[in-house]
Amino acid sequence: MATFMDVHDGFVGVTEAQLAEAHQADLDIQATEGVHFERAWLDPESGKVFCLSTGPSKDAVMRIHERAGHPTDQVYEVSVEA
Amino acid sequence: MATFMDVHDGFVGVTEAQLAEAHQADLDIQATEGVHFERAWLDPESGKVFCLSTGPSKDAVMRIHERAGHPTDQVYEVSVEA
Repeated sequence: MATFMDVHDGFVGVTEAQLAEAHQADLDIQATEGVHFERAWLDPESGKVFCLSTGPSKDAVMRIHERAGHPTDQVYEVSVEA
Repeated sequence: MATFMDVHDGFVGVTEAQLAEAHQADLDIQATEGVHFERAWLDPESGKVFCLSTGPSKDAVMRIHERAGHPTDQVYEVSVEA
């Protein structure tokens, strides 16, 4: 199991309720790929969202995000932590 | 107090010990700006580092990173979390 940070753009002005809804869409299907999303952080001014997850592969994380309706190709395997 | 995620590029091939050393350089001086770095994640393949912190302002976070020797202008105030 590896740890991933991914980045989404374009979430300008998104509210807490909207982020929770988008995150829930990931949570609802994450088990189908063995992925677990831990936390998501949003900067509504720049529209950046950062998601921390664990899972079997970068592709698995990308597939969950794509099926949940918010695809991104910015997924990084963060194998080192401090 | 706000929460921030910042991103560094160029840490390709950096080891766990080197990340710990860079992170410690932030910790050593963070109190001078009222910043607290919580966690840092590294993808040594792409060279991306993500740092999660709390502090009074984006500029305070930038000043600590600059004085610690690893400046970045990619600092995002993540005011919403899921």
